[in-house]
Amino acid sequence: MSVTDELLANNARYAESFQGPLPLPPAKQVAVVACMDARINVYGVLGLNEGEAHVIRNAGGVVTEDEIRSLAISQRLLGTKEIILIHHTDCGMLTFTDDGFKQSILEDVGVKPSWAAEAFPDLDDDVRQSVARIKNSPFIPVKDSVRGFVFDVATGKLNEVG
Amino acid sequence: MSVTDELLANNARYAESFQGPLPLPPAKQVAVVACMDARINVYGVLGLNEGEAHVIRNAGGVVTEDEIRSLAISQRLLGTKEIILIHHTDCGMLTFTDDGFKQSILEDVGVKPSWAAEAFPDLDDDVRQSVARIKNSPFIPVKDSVRGFVFDVATGKLNEVG
Repeated sequence: MSVTDELLANNARYAESFQGPLPLPPAKQVAVVACMDARINVYGVLGLNEGEAHVIRNAGGVVTEDEIRSLAISQRLLGTKEIILIHHTDCGMLTFTDDGFKQSILEDVGVKPSWAAEAFPDLDDDVRQSVARIKNSPFIPVKDSVRGFVFDVATGKLNEVG
Repeated sequence: MSVTDELLANNARYAESFQGPLPLPPAKQVAVVACMDARINVYGVLGLNEGEAHVIRNAGGVVTEDEIRSLAISQRLLGTKEIILIHHTDCGMLTFTDDGFKQSILEDVGVKPSWAAEAFPDLDDDVRQSVARIKNSPFIPVKDSVRGFVFDVATGKLNEVG
């Protein structure tokens, strides 16, 4: 049995006690942008219930064009007003460089990605960079509550980046 | 008190009983790509525990360049092998068009996004499109378990797209 099949069996159990449907717009009017890291259970970390917040995630929790797209849709069409950014300690993005990663792909398959891998050497600096990209975008209308945090994978605690 | 402050208070309670740190690579070697929709609690829906799977999310759960980036990092650097795609019923992406959304931004702020909004008129077709984008990418090495689903926000059930 594949892992996917195992998780589908979990889903059948989840559906047995599921109560739905909830409304489409997030009840708490907040959007979270977090790293894809397996150790960050965003609903657990923030004490969120189903239906309360948009959750956007990618490698690093960085803000690229696709996060601007998602945040623009979140705020303009679905009414969110606050943004929470979450990076975390022991992040894989600290362990390589864009140049090295892209060179390894070139050597492996003969094609070099035209995109940035978005590796970063410093967590706090990259949280600030992600905040700056949001503040700099003309497509995100509400920017008065954009706050960035580093999740500590040892303690479970969010520490704010000033 | 802002919603962000309220969620930080939740986090303090979460950290009280947190057990960490877990290893960096996802224990179940799986990556999930899901819509940012507030009603999809991915860990709940799939019965995942902390540390088991990468979770990538955006507006629609579509595969754009940033999801290819995240999946390439997930597979090449952190050893995941299976991919689960999750769209869902009652999705906001069914309610607008790229042209209309981008025109409304142009009229509002005088700048038209250079990116696609990735709205779609049919859920199953867009799941298949996301699978096709992964299968078509030279940067994702393991493609023999890429499966797509529609999450039913009324029942909590994942229905596979053939």
